[in-house]
Amino acid sequence: MNNPFKNQIIIDGLQYCNWNRDLFEDALNGGLTAIHATLVYWENTEESFQKIQDWHKIINNNNDILCHATCTSDILKAKKENKLAIIFGFQNSAPIANNIFLVEDFFLKGLRFMQLTYNNQTALGGGCFEENDSGVSRFGKEVIKEMNRLGMIIDLSHAGKKTCLDAIALSSKPVAISHANPTFFHKSKRNIEDVILKELASKDGFIGLSLYPYHLKDHSNCKLEDFCEMIKDLINLIGIDHIGIGSDLCKNWSDDVVMWMRNGKWTKEINYGESSNKNSSWPKQPPWFKKSSDIVNIYHGLDKIGLSEKDIFKILGLNWFNFMQKNFS
Amino acid sequence: MNNPFKNQIIIDGLQYCNWNRDLFEDALNGGLTAIHATLVYWENTEESFQKIQDWHKIINNNNDILCHATCTSDILKAKKENKLAIIFGFQNSAPIANNIFLVEDFFLKGLRFMQLTYNNQTALGGGCFEENDSGVSRFGKEVIKEMNRLGMIIDLSHAGKKTCLDAIALSSKPVAISHANPTFFHKSKRNIEDVILKELASKDGFIGLSLYPYHLKDHSNCKLEDFCEMIKDLINLIGIDHIGIGSDLCKNWSDDVVMWMRNGKWTKEINYGESSNKNSSWPKQPPWFKKSSDIVNIYHGLDKIGLSEKDIFKILGLNWFNFMQKNFS
Repeated sequence: MNNPFKNQIIIDGLQYCNWNRDLFEDALNGGLTAIHATLVYWENTEESFQKIQDWHKIINNNNDILCHATCTSDILKAKKENKLAIIFGFQNSAPIANNIFLVEDFFLKGLRFMQLTYNNQTALGGGCFEENDSGVSRFGKEVIKEMNRLGMIIDLSHAGKKTCLDAIALSSKPVAISHANPTFFHKSKRNIEDVILKELASKDGFIGLSLYPYHLKDHSNCKLEDFCEMIKDLINLIGIDHIGIGSDLCKNWSDDVVMWMRNGKWTKEINYGESSNKNSSWPKQPPWFKKSSDIVNIYHGLDKIGLSEKDIFKILGLNWFNFMQKNFS
Repeated sequence: MNNPFKNQIIIDGLQYCNWNRDLFEDALNGGLTAIHATLVYWENTEESFQKIQDWHKIINNNNDILCHATCTSDILKAKKENKLAIIFGFQNSAPIANNIFLVEDFFLKGLRFMQLTYNNQTALGGGCFEENDSGVSRFGKEVIKEMNRLGMIIDLSHAGKKTCLDAIALSSKPVAISHANPTFFHKSKRNIEDVILKELASKDGFIGLSLYPYHLKDHSNCKLEDFCEMIKDLINLIGIDHIGIGSDLCKNWSDDVVMWMRNGKWTKEINYGESSNKNSSWPKQPPWFKKSSDIVNIYHGLDKIGLSEKDIFKILGLNWFNFMQKNFS
């Protein structure tokens, strides 16, 4: 292993890749212990159960280097066996439709993260691209109780401001924003205002910082130094324990997938989402974060701006691990 | 026919019954020409396609007295052939999930009414039981365009106030509230405020007045005279052409169905909906409207308070017919 992560738990709190052996090996050899992998966005119930089936096959076919994590001890076991632990997550509540009983069904199949919304309003709450955010709905309140009961992490990425604040207040367990950045770093609909970050941290919640270009200052030209300085500022704002990485790395997809992520089947007219210049391609990753193993660059970047090794490892994995323990230990 | 409807088009703008031959015969012999029948509430896509299949079978098995109406000329044909025309409707947008292309699929199967919401928030808009109503969402706007294009009636029954106002403003074709009463008659979350009624009428929209006890002044003890006086007041408020009957008659169901209507699968804890005293039974219909054929009592009630025969027949069917023509002639 050509990196300083030998005895550390390193976690990427969200990736959406078209996975293959090379990508898994890059992550494992790059020192990652666990990845929260997105399985679906717009898929319906049946399609989502199918995706879970597909993932069990992928893990089984690569079980020399992969394992499926449903609790934090699985992550520790993966570390011991030099495997990459995969945590299943949905980036939307579309799979549960109107049916609260599906939350447990998906939990029993291994799901551990679910977003309430994906940009658009759902039956549970408001999305970050909506003009008006309802906050958490009647059904949303019931689903939050159910996710809390089971130990499924409520993920507020892509939710609207009121929905975030409502969910933070309603949830009896700490909630996550698995992949986003503070708006003080880069103003965007997907990034998070200070008031929410503070509320999140005050309830022991968590933010995974994103490397998706539209969430970064200067997008694809974002400098590593600026990203690391943002982390330092965020530590000052909400304390170190609530911060990790959720890279939102999307590798090996054709361009039609980014358009599908934006449009699903909800519109017949093309919607360009976060792209202001009607770009229908994947945005270019910054040169210092083009693959899982590039997380080592963030290690060096944080080291360079003076973070202690202990604090760096908190940011790169230990904090995620401790947060996950509060939901599914 | 023991009623004065021989040469008239009589339309009930919403019923949800567990239909059988007796109920169809009562409606037909009672002078009804067409009924907008609710097929589903909480059902998902597959279940909703199945319900449509079931209904085609029901109509086929009773094709001596029933026909399926997909345009207003089908209603005229039914009248001529002394049959009861059935218009298909969904009381929720659950069947289309996140998929705008399903609107056309359901339209092609004969669907002509769809509510954006049923009490609760959906991906399209806010429900009347929600604390915060988002108004019409991004997806909701796209669906409204699609329903307009196809000629499917946007039904705002069970929607929140902002969602009603948004949809009235957004829709290029007149919209309906198929079954509700004015709040000036009886204050309830399901009934409609004057400001919405006026907006609705100003855009050529339509309200079908409900006989469901929770929508009535004094509930099951509501007097026919009071109901008819309400109609007179409503005519003064919004003009006669925008008013019809949408009885919300629910016959031949066991009590678990009213609880299912309220709870669907969205909550594990029992929700009592419009019943303030935790009643889990169907409310008792007022004695003057216990079955389809009792619409003759409303005829006599309106006659008694001085409405002209011409105006009575407008209220009892002609207005609905003219309104429907603006969507699916």
